[in-house]
Amino acid sequence: MTFRGKIKTGKLKDAFESVSRLVHEIKLNVDENGFQSKSVDPANVAMAMLEISKDAFEEFELDESMTLGLDLDRMDDILSVASKDDDMLIRTEDGSKLEINVSGFDYSISLLDPSTIQQEPQVPDLDLPVDLVINGSKFRNAIRATEKISDYVILSAEDDRFTISAEGDSDSVSIPMSGEELVRMECSENSRSLFSLEYLSDMSKSIGKVSEANIRLGTDYPVKIKFKLYEGVVLEYLLAPRIESE
Amino acid sequence: MTFRGKIKTGKLKDAFESVSRLVHEIKLNVDENGFQSKSVDPANVAMAMLEISKDAFEEFELDESMTLGLDLDRMDDILSVASKDDDMLIRTEDGSKLEINVSGFDYSISLLDPSTIQQEPQVPDLDLPVDLVINGSKFRNAIRATEKISDYVILSAEDDRFTISAEGDSDSVSIPMSGEELVRMECSENSRSLFSLEYLSDMSKSIGKVSEANIRLGTDYPVKIKFKLYEGVVLEYLLAPRIESE
Amino acid sequence: MTFRGKIKTGKLKDAFESVSRLVHEIKLNVDENGFQSKSVDPANVAMAMLEISKDAFEEFELDESMTLGLDLDRMDDILSVASKDDDMLIRTEDGSKLEINVSGFDYSISLLDPSTIQQEPQVPDLDLPVDLVINGSKFRNAIRATEKISDYVILSAEDDRFTISAEGDSDSVSIPMSGEELVRMECSENSRSLFSLEYLSDMSKSIGKVSEANIRLGTDYPVKIKFKLYEGVVLEYLLAPRIESE
Repeated sequence: MTFRGKIKTGKLKDAFESVSRLVHEIKLNVDENGFQSKSVDPANVAMAMLEISKDAFEEFELDESMTLGLDLDRMDDILSVASKDDDMLIRTEDGSKLEINVSGFDYSISLLDPSTIQQEPQVPDLDLPVDLVINGSKFRNAIRATEKISDYVILSAEDDRFTISAEGDSDSVSIPMSGEELVRMECSENSRSLFSLEYLSDMSKSIGKVSEANIRLGTDYPVKIKFKLYEGVVLEYLLAPRIESE
Repeated sequence: MTFRGKIKTGKLKDAFESVSRLVHEIKLNVDENGFQSKSVDPANVAMAMLEISKDAFEEFELDESMTLGLDLDRMDDILSVASKDDDMLIRTEDGSKLEINVSGFDYSISLLDPSTIQQEPQVPDLDLPVDLVINGSKFRNAIRATEKISDYVILSAEDDRFTISAEGDSDSVSIPMSGEELVRMECSENSRSLFSLEYLSDMSKSIGKVSEANIRLGTDYPVKIKFKLYEGVVLEYLLAPRIESE
Repeated sequence: MTFRGKIKTGKLKDAFESVSRLVHEIKLNVDENGFQSKSVDPANVAMAMLEISKDAFEEFELDESMTLGLDLDRMDDILSVASKDDDMLIRTEDGSKLEINVSGFDYSISLLDPSTIQQEPQVPDLDLPVDLVINGSKFRNAIRATEKISDYVILSAEDDRFTISAEGDSDSVSIPMSGEELVRMECSENSRSLFSLEYLSDMSKSIGKVSEANIRLGTDYPVKIKFKLYEGVVLEYLLAPRIESE
C-alpha cells in the first residue's frame, strides 16, 4: 500500500484551507481518481466536499486505494512555510506516516487513525430551483456588507434577480444583482432562504478567491456553493438554512 | 422634507472619521449650503467643526433644512465596504431613515433622534496671536515622536520658529521648525501652550492626511487646527490647553 | 569627556535591535575603534557581541574612552520614528545624557549608570570543528519550519552536509543542505548540538536580514553565529546547547 504524488503547494494549501473553515480533521480518500473528502462540521450545519483529481497532480502513483486521517491545522503549518508554486512531494507507505518534501524540507508527519475521525456525511441529493454563477469576490464583498448589519443573511432569487440581504434591528442592506452582474442565472421558481453568517462569512473567504462560484438555492432549503480553486481542484459547500421567525 | 445627494464615498468617509476621533454621535445640519456639524467630546476638552459644502456634492437636492442624528460608527461600517471613488447616493424623506446606495448596495439606516444627542457647543471666538500652516504629515510625525516621551505635548512659537516638544521624567524631544519647514508663519506674540496627547494623537491621524493644516495658537489658550480634506470638505479641531504645573 | 558621531539611522537601529533580542540594557564601550558591547541574557544561555567600527560612522570624534549605559527599548522608540537612511547625530558630554538629532528632531535622553547594568560576560574561547556560511534568509526559513514541530532544534554537520532538524512527539522535519545550498562549509569533525528555539527563533529574525551568516558548531557545544549587518557593523551570537535526553 503505497502512494506517491507531486503537486504544487498552493493547490493543497487552498484546498485544505477551504475545508478547514468547517472541520480540523478529515478522512482523505485516495484512489485512482485522486483525492476526495467529505466532511460535516461538529454542529451538523455545514458540509464541505473536496475533490482533487489525479490530473491536478504532476505525478500520481498508487498501488491500492487508501483512506488517510489528516490533521488540517498541522498540514497548514507545513504548507505555510513553502511558496505556492513550490513542488511538493508526498508519500506514504502504510497510511500511518506521511513523508512530505517541499522546498528542500523533509517532513515526516503522523497520520491520524481514520476510524477516530467523524463519519463521512451522507450528502443529500437536492434538486434546487435556482442555479446561478457569481464572481467570488463580488459574493465575498456582499457578505462582508451584511456582516455589519446582522448575524443572518438572506439569499433570494426572483425571476432574473439574485439578492443578498440582511435585516438588523434598525438597519438593513440589500445587494440585488441581475444581468451582467451575474455570470449566468436560471430560476425555475422564486426562492428565499436564511443562513447563519457565522458559517457563510468563513466560507466566503475561500469563495472570494475564485472568479466564478456556482450557487444553487431553494426556499428554506440548504444552499450549495461549488467552485474550482484550480483546474482539477473543486470544493463544494452545503449549508443548512435557518428557519425565519415571523 | 426630503434630502437627496450624491457624493464620492471618500469625502464622507474621511470627514466623518475625523469627527469620530472625538464623538460617536453627531447632529448633522443639512441646509442649502451643505452639511455642517459641531461636536464636543464627552469631557468637554475638544471640539470638531465639520463643513461639507454643497459644492463638494455631485448632486444636492433639498426642499427644507433639517437636522439628522448620525451614528458615526455605523456610518463607518457602511462606508468601509465601498471604495473611496465610488459614488454614494444618500436620501432621507423624513429624517428617521437614511437610504444609502453605494457600489450596488442598498442600505436603509435608522437615524438617531437629534434631541437625544449632546447639544452643539458654543465655539469660542478666539483671537490667537500665532497663525501658521504646516504640512500635515510633518505634524503627524512630530506628534508621534512626542508620544514616546510624554503624555503631553508643548506647542510653542517664538518669532519665526514653531516648536513641537515634550518633556518626560528623564528624556525630552524638541522639533523646531522655521523658514521652509513651514508653509507660512505669522507670530504677533510669542506663545506656548500644553496639550494632552490623548487627544492630539488621535487628531493628528486625520491631520496627517492633508498637505496643509492651519494652526492657531496662544499662551495657555486653546489651539485651533483647521484643514481641508477635499475641496469643500473642511474640518476644524479646537483643543483646550492643560495648565503646566510648576 | 566628549563623544560626537554621525551615522545612518538604519545601522544603529539594526545593530541595537539584534542585541535587544537578548537584553534590554547594555553597556556600550566607546573608544578610538568605535562602539563595542558584550551582553548575556538574564538566564545566562545566550550572548550577543556587537561591534560598530569607527569606519561605519560618517563622523566620529572622541577625546577619551567611555562606557555608556543604554536602554535599548528607549533607543528603539527614537530610532523607529526616523528613516533608515536619515543621518543621525549623537553626542554626549559626560555620559549622563545623550543628545540625538535626527530628521529635525532633537532628543535628550538620560543614559543609565553603567554600574547598574549586568557585568559584561567572559566570552569563551572555543575551537569549534564545523565552520560554515549560510544565507541568512535560508537559515531563518529553516528555523521557522522547525518551530512548527518542536521547541528544540538540532544543528548537525556530517562531512559536507549541514542539517537543521526538529523532532516532535509524532512529527519531524529535516532540512539538509550541502554543495551550492551553502556558501561554504568546512567540517573537521562530525558534530551535533541541540538548542532552544525560544532563543534561536528570536536570533534568526536578525540573521534573516543578511545574505551571509557564519555558523561555527561542535557536539554539545555552544553555537556561534556571526554576521555583518552593514560594512563595519558586526554582530555575533553565542548560544549554549541543551543536552539531549536519551
